[in-house]
Amino acid sequence: MNEHMRLMLPGPTPIPPSAQNALGRPMINHRGPEFAELFARCMDGMRWLFQTRGDVVLLAAASGTGGLESAIANTLSPGDRVLALVAGEFGARFADMAEQFGANVTRLLVDYGQAFSPDELASQLALVPYRAVLITHNETSTAVMQPLEALTRAARRVHPDILILVDAVSSLGVVDLPVDAWDLDVVVSGSQKAFMIPPGMAAASVSQRAWEASKVATMPRYYWSFEQHKQFEGKGQTPWTPALSLMYALDESLKIMQAEGLPAIFARHETMTGMLRRGAEAMGLELVVTNEAIASRSVTAIYPPAGIAADAVRQRMQADFGLVLAGGQGKMAGKIFRIGHLGFYQPLDMLTVLAALEVTLVRMGAELHLGAGVRAAQDALLKGSVVHA
Amino acid sequence: MNEHMRLMLPGPTPIPPSAQNALGRPMINHRGPEFAELFARCMDGMRWLFQTRGDVVLLAAASGTGGLESAIANTLSPGDRVLALVAGEFGARFADMAEQFGANVTRLLVDYGQAFSPDELASQLALVPYRAVLITHNETSTAVMQPLEALTRAARRVHPDILILVDAVSSLGVVDLPVDAWDLDVVVSGSQKAFMIPPGMAAASVSQRAWEASKVATMPRYYWSFEQHKQFEGKGQTPWTPALSLMYALDESLKIMQAEGLPAIFARHETMTGMLRRGAEAMGLELVVTNEAIASRSVTAIYPPAGIAADAVRQRMQADFGLVLAGGQGKMAGKIFRIGHLGFYQPLDMLTVLAALEVTLVRMGAELHLGAGVRAAQDALLKGSVVHA
Repeated sequence: MNEHMRLMLPGPTPIPPSAQNALGRPMINHRGPEFAELFARCMDGMRWLFQTRGDVVLLAAASGTGGLESAIANTLSPGDRVLALVAGEFGARFADMAEQFGANVTRLLVDYGQAFSPDELASQLALVPYRAVLITHNETSTAVMQPLEALTRAARRVHPDILILVDAVSSLGVVDLPVDAWDLDVVVSGSQKAFMIPPGMAAASVSQRAWEASKVATMPRYYWSFEQHKQFEGKGQTPWTPALSLMYALDESLKIMQAEGLPAIFARHETMTGMLRRGAEAMGLELVVTNEAIASRSVTAIYPPAGIAADAVRQRMQADFGLVLAGGQGKMAGKIFRIGHLGFYQPLDMLTVLAALEVTLVRMGAELHLGAGVRAAQDALLKGSVVHA
Repeated sequence: MNEHMRLMLPGPTPIPPSAQNALGRPMINHRGPEFAELFARCMDGMRWLFQTRGDVVLLAAASGTGGLESAIANTLSPGDRVLALVAGEFGARFADMAEQFGANVTRLLVDYGQAFSPDELASQLALVPYRAVLITHNETSTAVMQPLEALTRAARRVHPDILILVDAVSSLGVVDLPVDAWDLDVVVSGSQKAFMIPPGMAAASVSQRAWEASKVATMPRYYWSFEQHKQFEGKGQTPWTPALSLMYALDESLKIMQAEGLPAIFARHETMTGMLRRGAEAMGLELVVTNEAIASRSVTAIYPPAGIAADAVRQRMQADFGLVLAGGQGKMAGKIFRIGHLGFYQPLDMLTVLAALEVTLVRMGAELHLGAGVRAAQDALLKGSVVHA
């Protein structure tokens, strides 16, 4: 292992030292009072992070995909009409899952790198009395962040009681996502993203409407049962044995997040996104998402210069500097590289990755003005409203 | 937190130092070559532990309960006739889960602390063409280990192709459980047991018969899909983001287990069980499971002396010595205490817990000869075939 290795993936993200150290703590009884205190702190933190006074279910051993399965299995019945917004790989996965559980799924598609139009969503919803809409807030594979608030409003305008199930795995804790204020029914996130801890836990907010839906929903569920989780939370426990190490780490990472505060966290991600975008542009590189408004604040997707292979850039960045970037997925495999910047990153990391990228591209034969990308990002940082040490 | 605290629960169990240290390692790309090597080592280790040349699916973010759900959802269809052997809380959970997913479940019951008779199982199976039988190998709540090999033979005698789905969460890596030799279809275990790492991962062996069953099984599955796991294993990946920290720890704990060897591991658990049982008897305490043959090798359940509350014993053991024992579950809540001894324990730990128990009971007013229990356990250790430093 390269000891200088540093991940710049859209998850897993690096872990803050205090959370990293917490992972190694000895086991405790997950049915005892010490756990109940830890669990209560984590649940308070979850409600803070989801900006909800309602319930959050901590799926204490699950990946984000498991969290998404819980959203479907708890609120829907086989045959329910579901509209799935598919803008890339992760939207496709959410749709497939609902179909596998027997939902009658219609897929609304947009081109790679595009967002959905609220009006188009409303038109589509008006055609059929859909029971639910599935939205992937941040489509990691295309680096697009959907206009979730506007889409939600459009959906509620047509069907006031439609269930809005949101994959916020790579957006919660990155951009403002007030679950109650936006009236979202189930919002799912995962531990290896903005939570800044290793993969292995997922969380889902559950609205009153979702609880009502769960009473009539007949899709089978046991491990994912929201009701079981709610019942055990009353006893200060999780229904099944939780991933204790991750909960120790979550307890620490929540302290870090709460000390920074949600507005500062969102501003930091905004700043870092702007830095990368200005830097890439100044280097003459093409961004996959050209519309700034829908550019992901979690991950930025970039085309390599003509004649240079995207995956070769990634290999060179890792070999020479230990920086691990993500590649393209699905039909974009090999065509782009993606830089993750959600979670435990600061603006300085963006200057670092741009500096390395400039050197790497020059080594690979690209013609560019060394330092131009870094300088543009420094400018963006200085002009930004929030400056981090 | 009491820094002297030591868990003696039937999971989570203590973590060996090398595995504990591994938990804090930084994240790696779970779609990269470094992960593929780690994953391949873990999968080789899993096949060794399950004693199979067939497939093992590593459910890389799941508790044992999730593993059991995977066994059901991958092999059965709604309406399938399933015989569930229910000897306690965990058997009841396995049965409930199958029912929730639409199986037609018949429950075969035995009294608390008892095992199933292979002949009775055969008689029951002869009544109906059951598709599957669910067996909880070690019923943690009653401290009974079922005669799995004999039960399997009896089942196959009646229905040669019946699916045998086994909850081995707290028995795999404790007693001999040769998955191929005993022709078991799906055997499930969890990370916080004999794997000696924190909770959060489950594993399931999948026989050829189970693969055939999965082709026609219609219960919905996505996150738990064996097929997805098999397909991604071919690429050196898990389908969903894995709990990386736990996989680092698993890699270390497998080294420890392989260095000790399966025969020595099984003999160690056998020795520790005998020590605790002889020690308790010498102290005049009543064991819940009197038949030595079916006594769990993972956990030992003991009645407190007359007039002393079981939960008060547990509180005192924890307050005075930092030793955390388990209580009774279900209808045995408050009536017994249970000492876990699966995973990272050595015979010396049994002398320790007995010594503390003697002092505790005397402090609580019991009349017993101090040292008698410890001496009986020392005798058992000296007479045992395996002696550990």
